[in-house]
Amino acid sequence: MDPPIGTVREAVARALAEDLTPMGDLTASLIDPGARVNAAIVARQDGVLAGTLCVEETCRQVDVDISVSWHVYTDGDLVSPGDVVGHVHGFLRSVLTAERTMLNFLGHLSGVATLTEKYVSAVQGTGVRILDTRKTTPGLRALEKAAVRAGGGFNHRGSLSEMVLVKDNHRAGLSITDAVKQATEAWPARAVEVECDTLEQVSEAIDAGARMVMLDNFKPDRIADAVALVNGRAMVEVSGRMNLDTIRDYAQGGPDVISVGALTHSAPVFDFGLDLEA
Amino acid sequence: MDPPIGTVREAVARALAEDLTPMGDLTASLIDPGARVNAAIVARQDGVLAGTLCVEETCRQVDVDISVSWHVYTDGDLVSPGDVVGHVHGFLRSVLTAERTMLNFLGHLSGVATLTEKYVSAVQGTGVRILDTRKTTPGLRALEKAAVRAGGGFNHRGSLSEMVLVKDNHRAGLSITDAVKQATEAWPARAVEVECDTLEQVSEAIDAGARMVMLDNFKPDRIADAVALVNGRAMVEVSGRMNLDTIRDYAQGGPDVISVGALTHSAPVFDFGLDLEA
Amino acid sequence: MDPPIGTVREAVARALAEDLTPMGDLTASLIDPGARVNAAIVARQDGVLAGTLCVEETCRQVDVDISVSWHVYTDGDLVSPGDVVGHVHGFLRSVLTAERTMLNFLGHLSGVATLTEKYVSAVQGTGVRILDTRKTTPGLRALEKAAVRAGGGFNHRGSLSEMVLVKDNHRAGLSITDAVKQATEAWPARAVEVECDTLEQVSEAIDAGARMVMLDNFKPDRIADAVALVNGRAMVEVSGRMNLDTIRDYAQGGPDVISVGALTHSAPVFDFGLDLEA
Amino acid sequence: MDPPIGTVREAVARALAEDLTPMGDLTASLIDPGARVNAAIVARQDGVLAGTLCVEETCRQVDVDISVSWHVYTDGDLVSPGDVVGHVHGFLRSVLTAERTMLNFLGHLSGVATLTEKYVSAVQGTGVRILDTRKTTPGLRALEKAAVRAGGGFNHRGSLSEMVLVKDNHRAGLSITDAVKQATEAWPARAVEVECDTLEQVSEAIDAGARMVMLDNFKPDRIADAVALVNGRAMVEVSGRMNLDTIRDYAQGGPDVISVGALTHSAPVFDFGLDLEA
Amino acid sequence: MDPPIGTVREAVARALAEDLTPMGDLTASLIDPGARVNAAIVARQDGVLAGTLCVEETCRQVDVDISVSWHVYTDGDLVSPGDVVGHVHGFLRSVLTAERTMLNFLGHLSGVATLTEKYVSAVQGTGVRILDTRKTTPGLRALEKAAVRAGGGFNHRGSLSEMVLVKDNHRAGLSITDAVKQATEAWPARAVEVECDTLEQVSEAIDAGARMVMLDNFKPDRIADAVALVNGRAMVEVSGRMNLDTIRDYAQGGPDVISVGALTHSAPVFDFGLDLEA
Amino acid sequence: MDPPIGTVREAVARALAEDLTPMGDLTASLIDPGARVNAAIVARQDGVLAGTLCVEETCRQVDVDISVSWHVYTDGDLVSPGDVVGHVHGFLRSVLTAERTMLNFLGHLSGVATLTEKYVSAVQGTGVRILDTRKTTPGLRALEKAAVRAGGGFNHRGSLSEMVLVKDNHRAGLSITDAVKQATEAWPARAVEVECDTLEQVSEAIDAGARMVMLDNFKPDRIADAVALVNGRAMVEVSGRMNLDTIRDYAQGGPDVISVGALTHSAPVFDFGLDLEA
Repeated sequence: MDPPIGTVREAVARALAEDLTPMGDLTASLIDPGARVNAAIVARQDGVLAGTLCVEETCRQVDVDISVSWHVYTDGDLVSPGDVVGHVHGFLRSVLTAERTMLNFLGHLSGVATLTEKYVSAVQGTGVRILDTRKTTPGLRALEKAAVRAGGGFNHRGSLSEMVLVKDNHRAGLSITDAVKQATEAWPARAVEVECDTLEQVSEAIDAGARMVMLDNFKPDRIADAVALVNGRAMVEVSGRMNLDTIRDYAQGGPDVISVGALTHSAPVFDFGLDLEA
Repeated sequence: MDPPIGTVREAVARALAEDLTPMGDLTASLIDPGARVNAAIVARQDGVLAGTLCVEETCRQVDVDISVSWHVYTDGDLVSPGDVVGHVHGFLRSVLTAERTMLNFLGHLSGVATLTEKYVSAVQGTGVRILDTRKTTPGLRALEKAAVRAGGGFNHRGSLSEMVLVKDNHRAGLSITDAVKQATEAWPARAVEVECDTLEQVSEAIDAGARMVMLDNFKPDRIADAVALVNGRAMVEVSGRMNLDTIRDYAQGGPDVISVGALTHSAPVFDFGLDLEA
Repeated sequence: MDPPIGTVREAVARALAEDLTPMGDLTASLIDPGARVNAAIVARQDGVLAGTLCVEETCRQVDVDISVSWHVYTDGDLVSPGDVVGHVHGFLRSVLTAERTMLNFLGHLSGVATLTEKYVSAVQGTGVRILDTRKTTPGLRALEKAAVRAGGGFNHRGSLSEMVLVKDNHRAGLSITDAVKQATEAWPARAVEVECDTLEQVSEAIDAGARMVMLDNFKPDRIADAVALVNGRAMVEVSGRMNLDTIRDYAQGGPDVISVGALTHSAPVFDFGLDLEA
Repeated sequence: MDPPIGTVREAVARALAEDLTPMGDLTASLIDPGARVNAAIVARQDGVLAGTLCVEETCRQVDVDISVSWHVYTDGDLVSPGDVVGHVHGFLRSVLTAERTMLNFLGHLSGVATLTEKYVSAVQGTGVRILDTRKTTPGLRALEKAAVRAGGGFNHRGSLSEMVLVKDNHRAGLSITDAVKQATEAWPARAVEVECDTLEQVSEAIDAGARMVMLDNFKPDRIADAVALVNGRAMVEVSGRMNLDTIRDYAQGGPDVISVGALTHSAPVFDFGLDLEA
Repeated sequence: MDPPIGTVREAVARALAEDLTPMGDLTASLIDPGARVNAAIVARQDGVLAGTLCVEETCRQVDVDISVSWHVYTDGDLVSPGDVVGHVHGFLRSVLTAERTMLNFLGHLSGVATLTEKYVSAVQGTGVRILDTRKTTPGLRALEKAAVRAGGGFNHRGSLSEMVLVKDNHRAGLSITDAVKQATEAWPARAVEVECDTLEQVSEAIDAGARMVMLDNFKPDRIADAVALVNGRAMVEVSGRMNLDTIRDYAQGGPDVISVGALTHSAPVFDFGLDLEA
Repeated sequence: MDPPIGTVREAVARALAEDLTPMGDLTASLIDPGARVNAAIVARQDGVLAGTLCVEETCRQVDVDISVSWHVYTDGDLVSPGDVVGHVHGFLRSVLTAERTMLNFLGHLSGVATLTEKYVSAVQGTGVRILDTRKTTPGLRALEKAAVRAGGGFNHRGSLSEMVLVKDNHRAGLSITDAVKQATEAWPARAVEVECDTLEQVSEAIDAGARMVMLDNFKPDRIADAVALVNGRAMVEVSGRMNLDTIRDYAQGGPDVISVGALTHSAPVFDFGLDLEA
């Protein structure tokens, strides 16, 4: 599912304003205004494609005359070094003006998708699904969450407004039981999740009616204990300081989902180039 | 130098809208509205602080009653695990609502500053300075460029509108000599830089009047040749696929500056926590 | 819980621009610029107060010198004709310029809260809770949903992005079972609800794992059948063409919640006046 | 006359952002992306159509591929239950994503037009015209005023910046005569209107040069007295607490116009449905 | 009367973004961050002050710590070379960053006020008033119209939405009589004005009920004829290609108002300086 | 080089909102909605064309059905009274609604281009180039700087963020030498310019490494001295209170560039008309 096109339009307009204000592209002004070009968007590494809608929108906003084609590629596809994922055709001036902005989007979002795919692969066969978090880059949440989906991950809540997630900081002077009951009372149509540090808390949360429990910094073997304790009465989420090397250990404990902040806050860029064709 | 406060205001408003639209913070609604808290912003790793202005602005926009203090810390300071860089004081509801957004800014920007400082340290003593690029996260250029400065790096051009940088893609049917002369003619008050693949191109660019040359993917020893050739007539920039392990080799060639896209496109988050105090 | 203050700021700025662009308040320009006034916000009917934050923000944006006080009143309070809910104090020019905009917000939102309270009262003692819908006035969803809460109602999903609600229009070529399973697969952290026209559909939805079922245009006695069938395995929502006279009949069927579009799309204004005091 | 298209674009973008942020339409993501649909916009009650431009713009912003056709209908037309006023054709996913937003606009604005038409009908044959007021829903003034025109009503001033209307609150320490003279002096190209509580005030206003007088809460028979007194020297507006049952009595008094806040602040939604066709 | 503060806020934010994006003020970064300054805003020519609100808002947006004081001066005051109209006090960095933007507003708007005052003086004693037009600088209409008022001029309509002004281009296939009657019918609460090229047209317009006639490119003696013909039945506006030397001749003809596009489209800047004090 | 299209879109949207909010074009509503027109954009004076992109965008935003053609004309072309520079074709209603906004842009920007061309002509043959300044109309910098280019002028820095320009106000407690060295240290990739009042300052600036010196209020003969002193080591800019009559004297001194604030802050409008064709 693509991110909302309105969000894409605004993000692209903002990025182009950053790069072109106030005078526009000084260097492009040296180029023959009638020269046209066909340029290939080429992957320079392995990974997962994401952000094609942003590329299209960037070109459209720079110059409606630019056409973009993706051949067989779409968000979520695996690509390898040298793969020509798409072509951009139009006036050379316009294409060069759009180049950096389109690659910044494509590289960042494909970076998120690629890192997501690595986590998904790391838990393959365990039945565990990888979730993102609210630890997104400010201003890019919708786009990054779409990139997570492209990489095979799933989206946790999109904002503080969607569901109730009671963390330890919320519980000063409020027991888990009271928190869940009040939340269920106040927000009947929402899922209620509780962050738990101990099995006792897990029990209390489930008994109070929580639909999800988040095991915070549980060791892998204690995860299995918690899963056994929950016994299908709620969705079990694991969260904490795991990485690509250790996540499988956590997954073996049998939770439903593992949420990973790194997907959106620490994904290195995916390297794409724009190669002009003769 | 701080980023423009107007840019900070807009970026924070956008991030808060992402996290609170439409209903606001459901979970915070469970908390006693009169409860107040003192919370410490604690570093959980080594690195460089950046983004304090965004934290202040986030708090101000969520609730003007929240106060933020930074003790002795300011952007650019080195911090270590456990360092309490600042405190946030206010209604518990408001502080928790602001928490994720403030940490997203602080973590991302301190991540940029921290990676910058690593590159700066890697070339220490060589006299080379580290520059950023236009490979920034869409919508955050001004903030990331300020974070680069906090990390001891320097800012290359802020946009396509600032200076002329002739890359190989611009030179279809336009010699370096013609490009520099036309650029100087059209944009007399701007610096002109030329991306060069060979020493011959370096010579041609300098002779035509370029103020900067960018050596693209030069091996370290060829950099020294280029520097000797330029002989102070222009600023020498090195650009390409170096990393923290290899950059010092490139710096030994004696360029003035090395530009590193990774500073802004691949910096992992810096880990900060918000610890409530009793 | 108040709506996000950022949303309030934008809505108020927009409303003031509508009323003051381009020249400002021509009539107020006739008034002695030094004259000050104390003005009472007076209820002219029975109902529930909502929108006080918008009043404060309107005054702040027109003239920071205006002060607003609410005495003992806050959103959600019952008010009667003649009740002075608050006072506005400041320059007469500024107060008159702000008057219409502040009353438009207060009247509209208190109208929503008041109508909500009527529906809540109509089902009092049945244990049924009243939910709003996405049938909100364009541009005012966050404010109207807060007004629903002020009136004792509860918020259904805030947007299409929050949860999955499979309606009949979604089911062309997709069985309820498949829809729920695909939804659960694609959106593991979200509630899945299914709109049902028959008891068979209710059974199918529950069996497939739906967390909520929406009984669409069920007669009251068939609601009881459905509730018995569901037997606590999911939340039961009733939706359809009921009004204040008929809703109690539907509530008697024993659903958990009844959603009412009229709360936000057909609430008449609540009549408030601004009375200048000597 | 349509509302300004720029205003429509902004209102629609805002409404779609409300409904789709951040992830987009979760439920629509379950639908076959290639499935297309033809859907009828069907009136479910009697009344007057308004807001077609908003429907078109909603579809355009969601997916440019959606086409909208209105057959013989246009804003201002009378419609009856079962009337198919238009068709929407496009991808099923896109149509369902756009459905609620387009119907929210169409229902609200047709509701305004329909209520307006009832007031217009109530005074039919009296020669009195129905005016709207500034008591509009915040953020929707331009659209609601266009809907009033569609319903056969007329627009009073669009903002505080258009004309001078001296109300009793403006007259603290300023006689009617002085107010009108100062207003005429300060704003020579504007109409000046005075709100009057008594016949003496009407006389004073006219003598001072007012172009319009607003009779505030005059009983019907006193309206006739005022009209006789004015004797064509100014436009006579009646304002106050009339409703559909009583307005004709007021109109019999012979004023030129009656302004009715309810047109825009208390119009119930008009019920439209979107029916998918086989 | 000041322009709406919301408009001022937006105009200032836009202007600062133009001047500071993306990095901020590079040169100011060289200055000791603790240095404070007192700076005088000094007139360097004769004329009329306007735009003080924009200066205050510019300072507030750059740094809330800057204070602005105007001594005895306010918009509309006459100033002479050397007059210190106000002082700005704050951090030297901030004051220099704000300098150009505040002076651009002050110089442009005082330029408009100053030119207006010249036209006003040129017709002094004739009883004619000077009006502005819709020929304003895009994006600055509200501010320029306020500056016209500061200079002693008056505001014609603020937009196409305020009143009906039938020009010759509107009359293809529509007689003056029909145009006025239709306008009066469609827009009962608005003034109707007709642009006339001949005395016959003036007669026709008045007879049809026009409240204002605009004599377009009438010679001064024909203006007197038209005024005699109108004989107080409507407001007479003169418009056309007059300048400061010729306007008095036109005014002698006795119209009520003369509208002058030059006030807003051709006013040279007013020269102000910012002098740092020891 | 055109200004960034995104900037044009925003400036036009803002200008149209100013002229059409809230109701739209009242007068155009009287016109037959089906009537079409061909209208000529006619120059009424000598000068240089600029702003065609704004005209196109204005028409597109008012009604996509309007077509604009420019025949042989483009920004930068010389035009004479009576020249038909372009045609606008579409519905009469739409064309009249767009008329004033398109002419306001075209007149203002062609005014800037025309005044620029006069300054350029005044120094013809001297080899001096005319630069603009940051003394632009708030909100229109990008468009005005493009108009300067159309008139044969060149663009000085676009904002405070582009280069370092040390003025006397920056030098409180900071010598020229220190300022230049610190600037070069802090902003290695930027040009550094110093405003100088004396030849000694010029020497100091050059010796410290400044790339440009701005001679502030130098008499023509002292300019020659400064140029001789600089002797090609830096670009020499002249700035100050010259006008069209005196600028050639300054140019004779041999500077590289002369910057003229008047280009953008005091250019009178260029007179264009829109003539409907039969």
